[in-house]
Amino acid sequence: MSSESVKKVAIFGGSGYGGSELLRILLFHPYVEIVLVTANEHAGKAVADVHKNLNGLTELRFESAPEDLSELENVDLAFFGLPHGQALDLIPRLPSHVKAIDLSGDFRIDDAETFKKFYKAEHAGSIQGEFVYGLTETNREAIKNAQYIANPGCFATATLLALAPAVSAGLINGRIVVDAKTGSSGSGAKAAANTHHPQRMNSFYAYKPFVHQHVPEIEQHLRNVGEFNNEFVFMTHSLPVSRGIFASCYIELAKAMTSDELTQIYKDFYFEDFFVRFSEGSPDINWVKNTNFCDIAIHTNGKNAVVFSAIDNLVKGAAGQAVQNMNLMFGVDEETGLVFPGSNP
Amino acid sequence: MSSESVKKVAIFGGSGYGGSELLRILLFHPYVEIVLVTANEHAGKAVADVHKNLNGLTELRFESAPEDLSELENVDLAFFGLPHGQALDLIPRLPSHVKAIDLSGDFRIDDAETFKKFYKAEHAGSIQGEFVYGLTETNREAIKNAQYIANPGCFATATLLALAPAVSAGLINGRIVVDAKTGSSGSGAKAAANTHHPQRMNSFYAYKPFVHQHVPEIEQHLRNVGEFNNEFVFMTHSLPVSRGIFASCYIELAKAMTSDELTQIYKDFYFEDFFVRFSEGSPDINWVKNTNFCDIAIHTNGKNAVVFSAIDNLVKGAAGQAVQNMNLMFGVDEETGLVFPGSNP
Amino acid sequence: MSSESVKKVAIFGGSGYGGSELLRILLFHPYVEIVLVTANEHAGKAVADVHKNLNGLTELRFESAPEDLSELENVDLAFFGLPHGQALDLIPRLPSHVKAIDLSGDFRIDDAETFKKFYKAEHAGSIQGEFVYGLTETNREAIKNAQYIANPGCFATATLLALAPAVSAGLINGRIVVDAKTGSSGSGAKAAANTHHPQRMNSFYAYKPFVHQHVPEIEQHLRNVGEFNNEFVFMTHSLPVSRGIFASCYIELAKAMTSDELTQIYKDFYFEDFFVRFSEGSPDINWVKNTNFCDIAIHTNGKNAVVFSAIDNLVKGAAGQAVQNMNLMFGVDEETGLVFPGSNP
Amino acid sequence: MSSESVKKVAIFGGSGYGGSELLRILLFHPYVEIVLVTANEHAGKAVADVHKNLNGLTELRFESAPEDLSELENVDLAFFGLPHGQALDLIPRLPSHVKAIDLSGDFRIDDAETFKKFYKAEHAGSIQGEFVYGLTETNREAIKNAQYIANPGCFATATLLALAPAVSAGLINGRIVVDAKTGSSGSGAKAAANTHHPQRMNSFYAYKPFVHQHVPEIEQHLRNVGEFNNEFVFMTHSLPVSRGIFASCYIELAKAMTSDELTQIYKDFYFEDFFVRFSEGSPDINWVKNTNFCDIAIHTNGKNAVVFSAIDNLVKGAAGQAVQNMNLMFGVDEETGLVFPGSNP
Repeated sequence: MSSESVKKVAIFGGSGYGGSELLRILLFHPYVEIVLVTANEHAGKAVADVHKNLNGLTELRFESAPEDLSELENVDLAFFGLPHGQALDLIPRLPSHVKAIDLSGDFRIDDAETFKKFYKAEHAGSIQGEFVYGLTETNREAIKNAQYIANPGCFATATLLALAPAVSAGLINGRIVVDAKTGSSGSGAKAAANTHHPQRMNSFYAYKPFVHQHVPEIEQHLRNVGEFNNEFVFMTHSLPVSRGIFASCYIELAKAMTSDELTQIYKDFYFEDFFVRFSEGSPDINWVKNTNFCDIAIHTNGKNAVVFSAIDNLVKGAAGQAVQNMNLMFGVDEETGLVFPGSNP
Repeated sequence: MSSESVKKVAIFGGSGYGGSELLRILLFHPYVEIVLVTANEHAGKAVADVHKNLNGLTELRFESAPEDLSELENVDLAFFGLPHGQALDLIPRLPSHVKAIDLSGDFRIDDAETFKKFYKAEHAGSIQGEFVYGLTETNREAIKNAQYIANPGCFATATLLALAPAVSAGLINGRIVVDAKTGSSGSGAKAAANTHHPQRMNSFYAYKPFVHQHVPEIEQHLRNVGEFNNEFVFMTHSLPVSRGIFASCYIELAKAMTSDELTQIYKDFYFEDFFVRFSEGSPDINWVKNTNFCDIAIHTNGKNAVVFSAIDNLVKGAAGQAVQNMNLMFGVDEETGLVFPGSNP
Repeated sequence: MSSESVKKVAIFGGSGYGGSELLRILLFHPYVEIVLVTANEHAGKAVADVHKNLNGLTELRFESAPEDLSELENVDLAFFGLPHGQALDLIPRLPSHVKAIDLSGDFRIDDAETFKKFYKAEHAGSIQGEFVYGLTETNREAIKNAQYIANPGCFATATLLALAPAVSAGLINGRIVVDAKTGSSGSGAKAAANTHHPQRMNSFYAYKPFVHQHVPEIEQHLRNVGEFNNEFVFMTHSLPVSRGIFASCYIELAKAMTSDELTQIYKDFYFEDFFVRFSEGSPDINWVKNTNFCDIAIHTNGKNAVVFSAIDNLVKGAAGQAVQNMNLMFGVDEETGLVFPGSNP
Repeated sequence: MSSESVKKVAIFGGSGYGGSELLRILLFHPYVEIVLVTANEHAGKAVADVHKNLNGLTELRFESAPEDLSELENVDLAFFGLPHGQALDLIPRLPSHVKAIDLSGDFRIDDAETFKKFYKAEHAGSIQGEFVYGLTETNREAIKNAQYIANPGCFATATLLALAPAVSAGLINGRIVVDAKTGSSGSGAKAAANTHHPQRMNSFYAYKPFVHQHVPEIEQHLRNVGEFNNEFVFMTHSLPVSRGIFASCYIELAKAMTSDELTQIYKDFYFEDFFVRFSEGSPDINWVKNTNFCDIAIHTNGKNAVVFSAIDNLVKGAAGQAVQNMNLMFGVDEETGLVFPGSNP
């Protein structure tokens, strides 16, 4: 990409953790210029005064979100890292040439009734048809040509990457159980009782049993990936770490397979996917933190199988995958700006 | 119990975390005098120099384990908190009047072949028949009259307390999936790569997929509790906390039930069990840490159900339950010396 | 103390961490009955629904604070664990026979102007003269006869116990530097930005440089302990743990001493003090967590000396010392209800 | 730098945390090719199997250190991340054209007796004169022309950057007290008792009082920076985080200054230093983790002043500063390969 083709992007909702990660990545992206980053409560403040990790690295300032979105005429693509419900109103008002990637759940559910049940909000309606679900590894071609992306949820990303190859190959019989765990940054940048340090540091607990809003998102996409009508039990838990999602996915195979056989099917499925890696034994959130990688390991015992997947909830589970999708939409290498390692330790 | 009937106990293996917790509890037990605590590598040292939390609270010193166990003639009961394999040799050599509670896995498995497969050691043989499995809540009467107790594993305790009521009532159809997580103290008091702080503090990973040694222990005891021939998938994971086990147990009910209905069956089952508590929503290892409680919560969705249980791996999962069993063997209140709250935060 | 002389106590402010610790200790105190525990925002709720560590251990319910404090006629002693400023109004309105122990800073400062400067509130006035400063080890006789106790701040407790012997012996020349660190529970039970888990777990930072409100409290009491007019630099920092205060106190001795010589002076000073322990090398907050102990170690290098002290901010730094003082006021053994070990690990 | 001038570097000791960080940085450095990375115990293994954060990012394999260092003829510069004492033997045997940067303490101390006292090893002797102390900000010109660099210790880096401006300006009177704290990764990649997770996660303690080996290193360099003959008290403590050093440096000024006045002197001193940033209130290790930044804040109270500094012990305190020095030695921009932000959270 020549330097004159640097793209102009806007970030709506730059003060949360999703916005913070978008900034951390996009400030160093060779083909991107950030022309607007909004945060109403911090309007006028330097970005580096809020995200102090960026001190010395950017002169950007937060602005209020513009009332009139036609002001975005010079923008090529806008990211939305706003609380659920806000992008629903904003994206339809974008100038028609502006691409959009929404990190919230506003446009992930096609079915209006399901959406209402889980999100307690009005469904997007006809514009929903213009949204492509942004799980890069399974939806790459559609993403390349998309105007709008519904970026997947963090739990959904970890779970779908763990289940897609098996569903696609039609290997799963009966009930699927997914036991998923997330770090505290998944609750966002605002302090709350469940992220109060004195208690959270010694905590592990489950929440939203049987009713997490990522359930319909996962089921809907599995039906796109293969033939899927299995019973699906999905349970979310809170981990006392800052970053990371770990999903333990228990499936019953139609026929007995060895660990190697099933692993090979997964490796074939992700043959060209830079950001999916395979681990010996088990992945560990420690090795994917701050990165866009999804680490996977697979074990079988006759017909029983387990697939473990680990991601950073804020990167592959949010901002990193959003940039991965942006790269495809801009026609550049998917990895651009995302090839950085995690830290050790 | 009159003061002259204070019992004399010995602790073999007092330098590990199991031994440390036995000391923490037994030093304040009204009916117990500790007459021997062994730790070969610390022989001669003050207990309080090794377990510095006990500084100022005891004058006890570690001793070498006696070669000749007939020296234990004045002992009423001996605890064994030794690495797997050592109690196998020692307990058969105890004077015949000495009761014993073994915290290792040496005497938990009745079947010799299964034992060999999981523990890579020779089975106890005929003396195994004198051991009672020490899950207090399900085995109370047998424990009262036992000479020897095989104290349950930490994962086994959390899992069995979560499954026993449903198995006992014959409610479970098909495959059971247990996703279990443990704190780092479960790996013992010796430093090792998997408990190296710089990495462990940001880690979550699975280990021993499908082959954990608690699997046959759990299955064996479930067959004692009810009719049990379900497929059983059990997976262990490592949490970045010091203490706590959390088990998420996924079961399929023979018929649909509400959460309240299933919870009531559990409450009835544990009607008289002081150390089993019921939580709203989810238990949390934060609320059971340092205590002998097992907190449980139950949710259903039609025929699908999940039972969450949380314990402190070193207390209800080891030393606390051992003392609970000792109390029964001595004919005193089960709660004696164990009624202390956890900390908040 | 005979059973008929069980004392009736009230706790004002039972929902914070100070109140929570008072409950944890007093529920198991042999000579105390809790007859009232207030928490306006939780009035009517079971205590065990808020402090879930107490589930199964108490039937107490939170009540609103009574408007008319004459209702407390059956109360022997009231604890105040309220936000700064509230006890100022309440304690003067207590029936005259009711003793009081205030855990806030409301009555710790004798000088009205100093109080206004650091607490931005009106000074207590004449009633201040009835308050005794509750650092048990240095003020035991006055506490025994006190009507009202101003319980020391957590930083003040750790610092004063580290400095009192040297000040009392007149050993210190010149400037004192105290570098103090606290766990996150010191910020209270309410979630806030500085205790947001995703950030706090990887944080260490200083706060309130040169202006912490414990400075005048420490200086005032050091003047009571000995001749004190040294320059005093005191700096507070935040640790990413839940519990614990560690103070590193740097002093210049009037003449060179060995570590052993100075340590002996400290040991003599605390000869009869059960809750002050001496550590080899360094104390560690790990070994005092959940306990009423203060661990101390001392090192010299010629005329330079450092005194390290470690306490649990919520126990010896708040509720535990309050109960220690209550014991003295009730004429029972100072250790009553407080002899419990910390946990290992 | 043109692409043909990519430099060839070797890393001795690639399995520790210093080596791991060198790899993390140098693999993405535009002007560097890693031609050798040694780790005797892992020889033959893929680097990415040991440092799993690098999985998918490098095909490098660990090799045994060559017996005959003349094999390094194609190497431009070698890093030494070995345990103390090993580089002493190796660096003198390098081919004469090979530059070297040693991350250990082997060549930091000029005085032979002082070295022996603190390191219990024979001093380097005459070759010591060819080493330049690698605190980039204070020694830039000498580093540019150096053959060999003694890279500063982590504590020394944080302390020196906090004290150098004041010493250089001759502002300090009397005794200096530095209270320094480090994360657990400072103890290295090998598991040990003091980094055993169950205890370390709740720990804070002091170690090596008055005898830390960074004391003579700091004093020696302060004498190079300005006129320095102050009494210097330096105390090290262990933090329950993975990464980070925080130094609280207490100084007495020759005359009273405001915080702004003293801060301005520091800002002037570091006018051109990209990697030194100034914080409001206090720096926080959270904001420098994984980065090469040193964050500083300064407060005064009359003649008393405190300077807080925070670095990542493995980056600015080791590998990052080593690469910063390498850049200068290669004549490229100091920031090359080092301009990456820390993570938030």
